[in-house]
Amino acid sequence: MDRFLAAKNANPAARSLYTHQDRASKTVSVSADITPDFSKGLIPTIVQDDATGEVLMLAFMNEEAFRKTLETGEAHYWSRSRNEIWHKGETSGHVQKIRALRIDCDSDALLLLVAQAGGAACHTGRRSCFYRELRDGEVRRCSPKIFDPKQIYRISS
Amino acid sequence: MDRFLAAKNANPAARSLYTHQDRASKTVSVSADITPDFSKGLIPTIVQDDATGEVLMLAFMNEEAFRKTLETGEAHYWSRSRNEIWHKGETSGHVQKIRALRIDCDSDALLLLVAQAGGAACHTGRRSCFYRELRDGEVRRCSPKIFDPKQIYRISS
Repeated sequence: MDRFLAAKNANPAARSLYTHQDRASKTVSVSADITPDFSKGLIPTIVQDDATGEVLMLAFMNEEAFRKTLETGEAHYWSRSRNEIWHKGETSGHVQKIRALRIDCDSDALLLLVAQAGGAACHTGRRSCFYRELRDGEVRRCSPKIFDPKQIYRISS
Repeated sequence: MDRFLAAKNANPAARSLYTHQDRASKTVSVSADITPDFSKGLIPTIVQDDATGEVLMLAFMNEEAFRKTLETGEAHYWSRSRNEIWHKGETSGHVQKIRALRIDCDSDALLLLVAQAGGAACHTGRRSCFYRELRDGEVRRCSPKIFDPKQIYRISS
């Protein structure tokens, strides 16, 4: 069991951080200190590798995605292209285990610190979605290819 | 002169990366490889300390903000609350010097790697806007207070 969930289950005092009301109300009653303000719309969510600090991707959460993330300890997002909840890694197996969660001063952005299964977050097979970098006047690839997407997603070439 | 601008000015081959058309057309003709797709709306922009890897804040860019950022080497955003271009640090002096710029696989999110003047990005005086963290079942402050906002913004108490 990962540390994020272990702490949730082991520490009765901390359990209230994760307690939520029934699913019908969709109200997550985690500590107000780390509850996003969903009245502003979807919450942009930065995903950072907890071990290396590399920023892996950016996605969006609605309240259901936030609740599922806390419940399961694995990152869930709202897919704007498919208009549905997206359990990251459901197809590829490359789930993101939550190590920590941060919220910004305005409570309208989140930062997940994760352990990335498979070592790559990007559907292109690269470790980070942010693999194109402009630095010192030159554009370069700054994040290595970890897997072949054709293998992982079984796309016929 | 910082390295980002130095490279722009010193290297004629690199200059084309920053060349843009006249302001009326508002078309930034930087390398297509690092040009955001503004047709999708505002571009969420992650800001990370280039030296430490700490994620400092999240803001949004429109095309004008992106162009001004490339022109000046300092971060400009679109303020959604004030509906205007926001030159970060204009009031506080805490500008963000761009060291590198990354773009994600879908070209709809940016990552700036910056040197943060004054050592703090957050208007609360903390180094990072993401100063509240849930880890191991406990909420804590994870980014130190660097300045007193009352001093910097001359807010009467």
